[in-house]
Formats: sequence, C-alpha cells, structure tokens
Amino acid sequence: MDNRPIGVFDSGLGGLTAVRELRRILPGEDIIFFGDTGRVPYGSRSPHIIKEYAKQCMDFLEKQDVKMILVACGTVSSVLGEKIGEGRKIPCIGVLEPTVKAAVSATKNKNIGLIATMATVASGSYEKLTAKLMPEANFTGKGCPLFVPLVENGYFASDCEVTRLVAKDYLSAFEGKDIDTLILGCTHYPLLYNLIDSITEYKLNLIDSGKEAALGAKALLEERDMLSGWRKIGGMKFFVTDKEEGFAKLGKEFLGEELSDVTRVEIEEL
Amino acid sequence: MDNRPIGVFDSGLGGLTAVRELRRILPGEDIIFFGDTGRVPYGSRSPHIIKEYAKQCMDFLEKQDVKMILVACGTVSSVLGEKIGEGRKIPCIGVLEPTVKAAVSATKNKNIGLIATMATVASGSYEKLTAKLMPEANFTGKGCPLFVPLVENGYFASDCEVTRLVAKDYLSAFEGKDIDTLILGCTHYPLLYNLIDSITEYKLNLIDSGKEAALGAKALLEERDMLSGWRKIGGMKFFVTDKEEGFAKLGKEFLGEELSDVTRVEIEEL
Repeated sequence: MDNRPIGVFDSGLGGLTAVRELRRILPGEDIIFFGDTGRVPYGSRSPHIIKEYAKQCMDFLEKQDVKMILVACGTVSSVLGEKIGEGRKIPCIGVLEPTVKAAVSATKNKNIGLIATMATVASGSYEKLTAKLMPEANFTGKGCPLFVPLVENGYFASDCEVTRLVAKDYLSAFEGKDIDTLILGCTHYPLLYNLIDSITEYKLNLIDSGKEAALGAKALLEERDMLSGWRKIGGMKFFVTDKEEGFAKLGKEFLGEELSDVTRVEIEEL
Repeated sequence: MDNRPIGVFDSGLGGLTAVRELRRILPGEDIIFFGDTGRVPYGSRSPHIIKEYAKQCMDFLEKQDVKMILVACGTVSSVLGEKIGEGRKIPCIGVLEPTVKAAVSATKNKNIGLIATMATVASGSYEKLTAKLMPEANFTGKGCPLFVPLVENGYFASDCEVTRLVAKDYLSAFEGKDIDTLILGCTHYPLLYNLIDSITEYKLNLIDSGKEAALGAKALLEERDMLSGWRKIGGMKFFVTDKEEGFAKLGKEFLGEELSDVTRVEIEEL
C-alpha cells in the first residue's frame, strides 16, 4: 500500500481525459496533475524541445513526492518511448504501451490506424511497438495538427461542421487500408470520439489512449502493491504554467468535474 | 545613416508577412528576424507570460546590435502597448500604432472592426488607441483563436471551405455594426486577406497590420536619419527557437522568398 498521490503530466488540458478515467477506475487515489499550459501545444514541436520540456515537468512532479508518473500526453509518450522513466526513482508510464496493447488485442483483420499529433506520428513509436507486438500487422498513421486547436476552442460537438470537414480530410488517409481499429493517439481526441465514430459509421474499434493509460496505471500499481486502499474519494491538485482561470473553465469539459485547487507555477522555476 | 540591421520579432511565422513588406518598402535594409517558434502561439496565453517571453526575445535582438526593433506580432504589440520600448537603448515600434492610424484614416463612417488573437482583443489596446485618435469612433473587436492554427497548417486558400466556415462564424460578430474598416490585427492574417475580402464582399477597407508596421518602421528611420542608404538588396538572417527546417519551409509561403540563413537558438540561452 502506498498512500502518496499519482502524478499526471500533460502538455496542456488533454491529459484531463486520462484523469477522468483514473477517477472512474481508481476513485480512491489522490492525483496531482501538471499541465504545461504556458508552452502548449507540444505536438507541432521538434523532439529536442519536447524532451527538454518533459524533463522539467516530470522533475516538478517527482518533487511533489508522487508515487508514480502517468504521462497522459501522446506526444511526450511517443517521443520518449521506452526511455520514459529513465533516471527516475519512481515508476513512469505513458500512453504508448497500454494503447498499442489494446489496439493489437482489439483488431481482427490486423489493419490498425493511428491519428495523433505530427510529432507523435513522426516519432514512429506507435508503428514500431505495433510491429513488435504483432509483426504481421499493417499500420497506417496520420498526423492531425488541427484537432488540438479545434478541441481547445470548443469545436468538438459531434455535429460541428468545421471539425467534421477537417476530420473527413484527415480520415481519408485510411481509404483503401481496410482498418478495423483506430487509435486516438492524443488525449485531446476522446472529446472527438462521437464525431469520429459517426464519420467512420460506427464500424471501427476506437482506442482511447487516455482510458488505456489509466488502466495501465492501475495494473502497474496493483502489480507493485502500491494502490492506496482506504480512501473513498481521493483529492486532486492541479498545477499549470499559464493562468489558472482559463484552465479551470475549459478543464471542466475535459474532466467532467470542477477543478477547485489550481495553482500557477512560474516556468523559470521549473 | 545607420547601416546596422533592422530587428524584427514575432512569436512565430506570422511576422514574416511584415518582413515581406519591409523588403518591398526598404529593400536595401539588412534584417535580423527572431521567431519564438519553440513557444508559439502567444495569442492564447496570459499577459504575464507574453511579457516574459517578449522581453527575452527582444533582449536577444538587442544583443545582435540591431538599430531598431519592429515587433511584428499583434499580440505582443497589444500587450506591451505604449511600454513597447521601455528600458531599451534603441527605438522599438509595434504594429498597434501604425495600424490604428491607418484604420482611423481609412474609415468614412467611423465604425471600425478588429479581428485578432484572444490576447490582443482582451488587452483592449486597439480599442483604447482608436478612442484616443478618434473619440467618436465605434469600435468592435473579435477574437479569432483558430485563424493562426488554420494558417500555420496551410488552410488559407481563398476557397478553403473549413476556413470560410470558421471566418463566417467569427465575422458574424460584426453584423449590424455597419463597419467600413476592418483591422487584420495579427500578422498571420494577411494570408487570409483574399478569403476575408471575399466573405465581406469586397466592401471593407482591410487594414494589414504587417504592412502598416513596415511603413511605420520606414517613417521612424527616416525621421531619425537611420536608413542605410547604399545597399541595393539587404541580407536576411533568421533565428528561431524550434527546428529550422519546418520554419524555412512554411516561412517561404509567408515571406515570398527562400529563407537561406536560419539558425536555431536554445530557449534556455535567452
């Protein structure tokens, strides 16, 4: 048993969809969330910058005495890959491994698709891990750079014409690929679940990376006997690098609950 | 006469539309451009963060021994307002003042509109300066947070259905306001000039902040006898805080020429 909080890190708001799943799956856990809202988005940046920012943010969480870090950011998880916990004293898990495992387990015809940020697709991490776990799989990845700004600006309703047009454009990359499973490789994308499900005519297994990461965190804590068993409902604290108000307001949409304890951290102090 | 280069600063790529105008208006000047591509976009961030980033970037330009700084970023210009050159040894000019002057001079019915980033509109700078220069003017501002990501992802053709839908949505804020002049208050927006002109049925004076800022820089240098008179075509150097390749490729669309001399600067060295 370990009563310290779980640390969750994302470049911005998206990771709150993973926190939402954590709350559902492990309601008794305390959670400390760190969102680098002063430097979001990461998904269009180069690996060098992403690694530097991620190190600072994970260092911050480690200093908060968390028992593990869940990197609830598809971009950071992909760019760090297997090195996600390198040099850390606590276990670290990203969205990559649990998500690919879920996709490989869901597919019937072994044709798997990925939609994610440009940096995630360019990293090749999803493709490599899929090839490792299912060498005979066909993998197609498509970068969708406008999805994050669309979601962050509230354009995520299932009937939103703008986002439907953009999504149809992006999803045309899978024409002729006969995929039966599509990984939503960015933690912003669960807010587009209904829209994407409707455009793909409810035919695909949509794999939600936030949910899979939360399940991965649960498995990790169980395996190491690190669950905190006695609380009914854990507490949550949020740290961000830009203003608190905007984060708390939009964050509610992502989290499905009020964000009452939000603190701004100076970037130069990271 | 002053043969040192002009420094131009933007949060990302947008400022290159101002550089394009500088090249047209003052072809003999050397230009050093600094784009904070590692932390773009600024337009959705809070004033505190924007001021901190702007100070670092303008310090960098001053160290390059430029003779003046043109802040070719609507967001930074608005947030800094009249304090744009505070504490600097060289003259600094933003897009705010020349753009508002041009709008006030262009309007016939004194109903002026502004489209810009959320931070620019929230700063109130355009509204305040318009009221100062034309107290009887009616001013309407509208934040357009999706325009920058749309432009940066290549969605700027005049017939782009996605951007037309988004633009119609944003421009509906001016219904019933009878504006005859619309300020494009972000240096990304000149790439949407044709699209916006077509949606507004070619009826409005569209004020391009990049062009007005370049004209403002020319006036400033003339007034202080700081033009460099003897070159036929000046040189250009570009510094960015994220990878050079992506910047050079998309930058060509903004600048209208090849970007041959691009160097990456480490953010922690700023």
